[in-house]
Amino acid sequence: MEDHTALGCRDFVDILASKAPVPGGGGASALVGAIGMALGNMVGSLTVGKAKYADVQDDIIVLKKQADSLQDELLNLVRIDAEAFEPLSAAYGLPKDTEEEKAHKAEVMEQCLRDACAAPLDIMRRCCEAIELHEQFAAKGTAIAISDVGVGVVLCKSALQGASLNVFINTASMLDRRYAEQINTEANRMLEEYTARADVIFTDVAARFN
Amino acid sequence: MEDHTALGCRDFVDILASKAPVPGGGGASALVGAIGMALGNMVGSLTVGKAKYADVQDDIIVLKKQADSLQDELLNLVRIDAEAFEPLSAAYGLPKDTEEEKAHKAEVMEQCLRDACAAPLDIMRRCCEAIELHEQFAAKGTAIAISDVGVGVVLCKSALQGASLNVFINTASMLDRRYAEQINTEANRMLEEYTARADVIFTDVAARFN
Repeated sequence: MEDHTALGCRDFVDILASKAPVPGGGGASALVGAIGMALGNMVGSLTVGKAKYADVQDDIIVLKKQADSLQDELLNLVRIDAEAFEPLSAAYGLPKDTEEEKAHKAEVMEQCLRDACAAPLDIMRRCCEAIELHEQFAAKGTAIAISDVGVGVVLCKSALQGASLNVFINTASMLDRRYAEQINTEANRMLEEYTARADVIFTDVAARFN
Repeated sequence: MEDHTALGCRDFVDILASKAPVPGGGGASALVGAIGMALGNMVGSLTVGKAKYADVQDDIIVLKKQADSLQDELLNLVRIDAEAFEPLSAAYGLPKDTEEEKAHKAEVMEQCLRDACAAPLDIMRRCCEAIELHEQFAAKGTAIAISDVGVGVVLCKSALQGASLNVFINTASMLDRRYAEQINTEANRMLEEYTARADVIFTDVAARFN
């Protein structure tokens, strides 16, 4: 599977707009999550080495390492999401003319749906962590770049929400409703808690300019 | 000025996370707006040529052309935003030891702030247009890719909100309050109307999976 994050930004946007099966909404969300996290990380970069922020410098260095890792993980999830989508796409095309074929297709589909859910669920988890890091960068980072913390967190929030649709579209087709509801519960819990936490940061940043 | 959209996605994220003055929150918002628009456009790409959607095919082809243009304009705004930021960054460093220097710096700053506002304001306008196109793709596009319309619109919404912070941080420093309030009024009007319109699409898409 091609790693679409190796493409130039314009080429990524072009292939996203095409009818190519991947990247899609999951991969786009993962990339936007990485872009959002990078903005929080940038505020850290602008804070390190500044006398005014010497007392938080050690904290910022730790936060920046965590942000670097999250960016990497989210960028890797662009490829992981694409890899999980292709078998699902193939499974939709399996024949279902006989009872045996129907049963086989149902079984393959169920496993492919689980696999296709795993990547966007992971994207959601990473976006929640990215929102937590933004809380830290907002509290400790340089005030001159405070708007970038606000932009970063609202991008991570949208990546969280975007990835959730790719979870829900897959759980909706699952036959094992107990498993599906378990995944939905986790996704809804993340959405509820972390969109609210992102809104607190964004609203606080926006209020400083009014 | 380097065009950062020519960079690979990973390199863009890396330079965004660094203390390099550009790209920043404005450029990141423009790129995310383009990514969001590309998802709506993808739904169009998956609709064209499908017998079931033959009666809307001509509309979809027109919408796709508009989406192509918006993607281009938003990607170009990454560079335009960077070009407008550098003079502002330099103006902050002008001396203000004498009354003459103070007056000169104030005058240069005021013009640089206007220029630095123009790009994020344009990013906001393009994101509003992108949200309008998503309304059309949601209404006319293939149902099999409906989740991607939801992801696309929530990414465009966050790009709109992110760019607004880069408008407000600049208008907040303007001495000409009448001009500043005029810009703020336009930005607030766009935020109010188009975040609500984006929410309608996102909520509608999410509801289909519950």
